[in-house]
Amino acid sequence: MSHLDEELQEPVDRREPTPEIYNEEGSVRTEFLEAVEAAIAGADTEFLRENIAGLHESEIGDVIEALPQEARPELVRLLGDEFDLTALTEVDEAVRLDIIAGLPAEQLASAISSLESDDAVYILEDMDDEDRDKILSKLSFIERIRLTRSLDYPESSAGRRMQTEFVAVPPFWTVGQTIDYMRKEDDLPNSFSQIFVVDPTFRLLGAVDLDKILRTKRKTKIEAIMRETNHPIPAETDQEEAAQLFEQYDLLSAAVVDSNERLVGVLTIDDVVDVIHEEAEEDIMRLGGVGDEELSDNIKTAVRSRFGWLLINLGTAFMSASVIGLFDESIEKMIALAVLMPVVASMGGNAGTQTMTVTVRALATKDLDIYNAARIIRREAGVGIFNGVAFAILIALVAGFWFQNPELGGVVATAMIINMFAAAMAGILIPLLLDRAGADPAISSSVFVTTTTDVIGFFSFLGIATWWFNI
Amino acid sequence: MSHLDEELQEPVDRREPTPEIYNEEGSVRTEFLEAVEAAIAGADTEFLRENIAGLHESEIGDVIEALPQEARPELVRLLGDEFDLTALTEVDEAVRLDIIAGLPAEQLASAISSLESDDAVYILEDMDDEDRDKILSKLSFIERIRLTRSLDYPESSAGRRMQTEFVAVPPFWTVGQTIDYMRKEDDLPNSFSQIFVVDPTFRLLGAVDLDKILRTKRKTKIEAIMRETNHPIPAETDQEEAAQLFEQYDLLSAAVVDSNERLVGVLTIDDVVDVIHEEAEEDIMRLGGVGDEELSDNIKTAVRSRFGWLLINLGTAFMSASVIGLFDESIEKMIALAVLMPVVASMGGNAGTQTMTVTVRALATKDLDIYNAARIIRREAGVGIFNGVAFAILIALVAGFWFQNPELGGVVATAMIINMFAAAMAGILIPLLLDRAGADPAISSSVFVTTTTDVIGFFSFLGIATWWFNI
Repeated sequence: MSHLDEELQEPVDRREPTPEIYNEEGSVRTEFLEAVEAAIAGADTEFLRENIAGLHESEIGDVIEALPQEARPELVRLLGDEFDLTALTEVDEAVRLDIIAGLPAEQLASAISSLESDDAVYILEDMDDEDRDKILSKLSFIERIRLTRSLDYPESSAGRRMQTEFVAVPPFWTVGQTIDYMRKEDDLPNSFSQIFVVDPTFRLLGAVDLDKILRTKRKTKIEAIMRETNHPIPAETDQEEAAQLFEQYDLLSAAVVDSNERLVGVLTIDDVVDVIHEEAEEDIMRLGGVGDEELSDNIKTAVRSRFGWLLINLGTAFMSASVIGLFDESIEKMIALAVLMPVVASMGGNAGTQTMTVTVRALATKDLDIYNAARIIRREAGVGIFNGVAFAILIALVAGFWFQNPELGGVVATAMIINMFAAAMAGILIPLLLDRAGADPAISSSVFVTTTTDVIGFFSFLGIATWWFNI
Repeated sequence: MSHLDEELQEPVDRREPTPEIYNEEGSVRTEFLEAVEAAIAGADTEFLRENIAGLHESEIGDVIEALPQEARPELVRLLGDEFDLTALTEVDEAVRLDIIAGLPAEQLASAISSLESDDAVYILEDMDDEDRDKILSKLSFIERIRLTRSLDYPESSAGRRMQTEFVAVPPFWTVGQTIDYMRKEDDLPNSFSQIFVVDPTFRLLGAVDLDKILRTKRKTKIEAIMRETNHPIPAETDQEEAAQLFEQYDLLSAAVVDSNERLVGVLTIDDVVDVIHEEAEEDIMRLGGVGDEELSDNIKTAVRSRFGWLLINLGTAFMSASVIGLFDESIEKMIALAVLMPVVASMGGNAGTQTMTVTVRALATKDLDIYNAARIIRREAGVGIFNGVAFAILIALVAGFWFQNPELGGVVATAMIINMFAAAMAGILIPLLLDRAGADPAISSSVFVTTTTDVIGFFSFLGIATWWFNI
């Protein structure tokens, strides 16, 4: 004991998260990666077991993603039973499917049965039906039922993300009984922060936080200290909605219930953190016109995710071009129009994107609704008019001096005010209408907004010029 | 007891989070809001206490944000001591400062001393120095020291976000002693999932999860069951970095240590969830060119946050315009050039934005680094060439038929390939270089990328046309 004591008295100094594998920028160190690649090439199982198997699952995930594609399944094969399959929940879908395809069904089934249920479901849900059924058929009856129940819930639902391992006790137990039960029971979840109270049919009666149990005398009955279950989540609930409940009420875990209000699982904050991240990521990607792309996708997948968006943009660009075509005679007579027209359109496009970004985010976080929409629309109108006038003055000065034509300055200034106002209105009304119509404003707003500002920008500038200069 | 028993046996049915205040879309119900407004106007304190005071802090925050500006401080004043100041941590900064400015210093000081330290710091940190010192001077010495210590750490650091209330015990205590201590000690944090083990100088020795304590016999010593503290976080660490540790290692809470490795506080997952949300939000807003704007900002603040970006865009738009100006004679002779040139530029702008979005996100999540940059650059080059050729064919067909000029189709197709390739390279290299240079690629990439695609688009199209048609 004395040796152990001594060791424990040493202050634990682990400031850096396992400094040996990450460099200062937080990516996997080149030297480490090269050593791993060499070990894989030389089938040096011992090196891999010593240096990879003991890492945290997310660290193993980072190493896998940093490896060249062909080395990844090889690493998993070489590690065999010592490979923690949880690591596959930490990598991109394309990488995961690639590795799974390379593993024998037996190894996969035995690895999956050792996972917590939420991780197992995470890995199984992306596989195609045939492969999944093959794996499921190799599991024990209980395990298969447990996983199938989760998999039967819709994609991205709370039922898919929940853990089916939890602690549930009857209300008439005492704190002492409960503690004793937890001391001797082996099949408990790895870590948990609350226990649930259920009736004999598993209907949810309440919950008790662990710190409450610790602070209560052994003789007290559970029903005396249990609290209402905070926001039990129906298993069909979309994961994004569930995440919003966690965020709003600062939950650490929440009960998941079926349509009969029976406890079927527990959703924990660590899964929710991933959901929050994914959903924000999705919005950024959609606003940028890149669907559900991942960094590890190959050229073909990347082209596929971007082509559609560019095709739509080509269509709308020709629409704007045809507006210019209407005024080709005016441009021929006054070439300065061709020089200035992209400036008006581009300013409108940027102003519209600004308003749209604010609107799309406010819709996603539910900060914007019918009740305050009127106020925000008024604000955006004000911003549009103010910026319109300010930039109208600037553009009038530059254009007037450049082409030595003050009247042209006046024309482009008027078009600028019109387009900046149109940009503000398009930026807020288009996402609002798309949202009303049940479409995701993050996906489609951008193309509608910039088309609007292009068309109105070209039309107002060239139209006013044609009328004013009578050309 | 029998009545209580009966009540407790009823299944708890709280599917909807307090259905009375939110509508189906998750925003505050109009009827409820109107009732609250009427109560504020009529100084109906009783109604407000009954219907607002008991709500969750985040629900109160939502109500406050949904109220008209002038009603907000009035609500807080009417609720008096029954107003839970924590609700102010749930509203936009502008709203918070507005309400705080309307509260007497005494009420504010007494409310702040009842908050947990992290919430108190969150409210104090945005106030100006003078107001803050006035509040601090009204607190007890201990409270003042505790809060000042947090406030002395840099903005957005772990030290600012940490809670200074935590449970720490010596390693030689038994599990029984620890449980007894927690049972009789009143001054414990509201909820916690681990306790820390420290030496007499508060140097961190380890930690024990609550479920571990519950599962261990009373006689066992704490040092026998304690584990290494997962990733203690130096108090100066930026909150974003701390959040990444939480995400990577699925932490629920982490010790915060000072430069002498002494335990000074604990960072909990609920604060980190907010940080993750804020940081993703920030990236979206920056990519959209709208700085740190909030939905509740007034016109002036919104104009200020967007003006600078638009001004830069005006400058770069004139740069592109001057490229067009170089070729004014060509355009005069062949007006179709004016019609088609925005199509080339716009396609490049969109393709560049796609690549840039992927790059900026990959940099933010540390998935992109020197080691794999070469692979991603190759991939983007491939995507650029493929999309360039595909859209070149499309645009050549449309333009050729439109203007009955196959040669023009060939010219615009060539320009399209050049610009799509340039877009791919700009989209990845510009964020990478900005990141290298220590700038935030989310803020400034967009303007550089679209300027590049505009200039190259106009120059290649007009230049090739001038050379080919010899005009």
